[in-house]
Amino acid sequence: MRTVCVHASVTYHILIEKGSLSQSGPYAAQVFRPGSKAAIVTDDTVASLYLETVKRSFEAAGFTVPVFIFPHGEDSKSREVLFQLYDFLIEQEVTRSDFLVALGGGVVGDLAGFAAATYLRGIPFMQIPTTFLAAVDSSVGGKTAINIPAGKNLIGAFHQPSLVVCDTETFRTLPPETFADGVAETIKYGLIASKSLFEEMEQGHIEEKIDDIVTQCVSIKRDIVEQDEQDKGLRMILNYGHTLGHAIEKVTNHSVTHGHGVAMGMLLIARLGEKMGFHSPELTQRMERCIASYGLPTHYDGSVAELGESVLHDKKRSGSIIRLIVVKNIGEAEICPLDVDKFIEQLSEVQ
Amino acid sequence: MRTVCVHASVTYHILIEKGSLSQSGPYAAQVFRPGSKAAIVTDDTVASLYLETVKRSFEAAGFTVPVFIFPHGEDSKSREVLFQLYDFLIEQEVTRSDFLVALGGGVVGDLAGFAAATYLRGIPFMQIPTTFLAAVDSSVGGKTAINIPAGKNLIGAFHQPSLVVCDTETFRTLPPETFADGVAETIKYGLIASKSLFEEMEQGHIEEKIDDIVTQCVSIKRDIVEQDEQDKGLRMILNYGHTLGHAIEKVTNHSVTHGHGVAMGMLLIARLGEKMGFHSPELTQRMERCIASYGLPTHYDGSVAELGESVLHDKKRSGSIIRLIVVKNIGEAEICPLDVDKFIEQLSEVQ
Repeated sequence: MRTVCVHASVTYHILIEKGSLSQSGPYAAQVFRPGSKAAIVTDDTVASLYLETVKRSFEAAGFTVPVFIFPHGEDSKSREVLFQLYDFLIEQEVTRSDFLVALGGGVVGDLAGFAAATYLRGIPFMQIPTTFLAAVDSSVGGKTAINIPAGKNLIGAFHQPSLVVCDTETFRTLPPETFADGVAETIKYGLIASKSLFEEMEQGHIEEKIDDIVTQCVSIKRDIVEQDEQDKGLRMILNYGHTLGHAIEKVTNHSVTHGHGVAMGMLLIARLGEKMGFHSPELTQRMERCIASYGLPTHYDGSVAELGESVLHDKKRSGSIIRLIVVKNIGEAEICPLDVDKFIEQLSEVQ
Repeated sequence: MRTVCVHASVTYHILIEKGSLSQSGPYAAQVFRPGSKAAIVTDDTVASLYLETVKRSFEAAGFTVPVFIFPHGEDSKSREVLFQLYDFLIEQEVTRSDFLVALGGGVVGDLAGFAAATYLRGIPFMQIPTTFLAAVDSSVGGKTAINIPAGKNLIGAFHQPSLVVCDTETFRTLPPETFADGVAETIKYGLIASKSLFEEMEQGHIEEKIDDIVTQCVSIKRDIVEQDEQDKGLRMILNYGHTLGHAIEKVTNHSVTHGHGVAMGMLLIARLGEKMGFHSPELTQRMERCIASYGLPTHYDGSVAELGESVLHDKKRSGSIIRLIVVKNIGEAEICPLDVDKFIEQLSEVQ
């Protein structure tokens, strides 16, 4: 088993191990109050695959296990499902001495995490990510959120999990496109913070060394989150490619998934960076080759001008300045403040 | 001007001064980003009295001032009004560089504070309490919340304000019953932490020394919140009389207001404490006299058994144990863990 320890406002461990789903109860028993309620929050897809294993493990470890299952998909990260979840927690008499278990991908983690952040002004929770993307991204770092019609993740909170258990076996049941979402974020980690990780991603065959790759990603995220838990400065570099990625997700009504959006977003920013003289054309080409080798898109077919519109409402904007994340050399990211209007103008000239 | 400085997860000042509403803009300019948006959140009653003064002061200090006004009353502390407020903030393009201004009583502060805690995963906010109760209670300490049908304040967050400006002149426009709500909380502060404050309350004529009394109350609250911001231990003593007070509010459908509920709650606990031998009958009598002298109720007319039912769902409960706050001597509170069933049984024998 690989273990990464995060020292944020809460200190917690990320356990990475094949087959750890069936051990999730005993692991939880080392962190949470014996005999308390472990309210599992999951979606119908994940429930059909893994709920029984996890529930049995928690029950065997002495927890009472109420289960809340909602329909899979981004549409469930809504105020309606959130308030159904609150009602469920009240009905089950879940108190501050109990905890939530987010079993699933990013939607489950974000929704359950936000419920945990706000139910009774905050109760503890645990993440059991079952997608590659959630494992390397949303399950670590304490960002939780729901969507509102105006945009994704506009309502949320910072609330660190008390434990993360990642069973990389679960990635085997992912559709290739969903697995690729995690690949895009992993390539991002390499680009912003680790040349050697990027080079491993270039070499391929990552399934064989997936535990190690997840460990590298969450260690990078841990290092950044420990320095800037509340996303006020450095943590922004984790958003490399994300401002445009989110915009692409939004204007395509989420037919483009998160990782695919980020892949296109990183390449748009790389082309813009190249044009502005931040780095050589070789860097862009190398990124393109690596991203393409995993079947991820390298070009955005829609209107780039429309993306600019969407960015205007993006929450990462600070007044009229956008803080662009730029990779000048592989493994090194920088924050470059840029006037929003200039950004949109420059952007319209790349594709 | 009296100033109390709070060192919580955020360090902030509470400014207490007659007439400070008209100076709220310049005070804010010392804390918030020049030229940013100060989104005022208030209710229709407060708006008609004070909005113009405050808005003008903020505009003169260089802020842009969008205003969100909702219907006064506890019913507005709802998910519907919360999401209307989110939509308003999006529409006004309020970003993380901007801030909210909660202008009003506890409902305004709790709702605006929770919106500030969760909009874009948290933006700064400022409290301008216009009721005695909000000034000594909800505007300080960072507890924010909304109600759901199952109960008051069940959904919320800890989010400290960045500044509190309290103009005690505003208390003059309060109906006597609403002023008395603040009196009940002030008596509570005396009982749990300051014998001399309680004695001042016994003496009466508090209008003449209101600035000093507010300062004493928020200083007591500050001392407690600094030690236990997240309400995991000591902070519970601030809830003296509140578990039953909230239950009374709930079973009477909020026809009993917060301070009136707390007054009855404190006396029920005092009678229970007397019965259990925690203190002398003299303490109960002295509390009764003081509370009655302000026109506050000393007895609950409804069914005490019904209150017990309600307590079962209270969020302050931890598993099957209720942590009772007991005042054994004036100015000294203790936390006594008690089995819920025993508590309810004992309670049914007092009135």
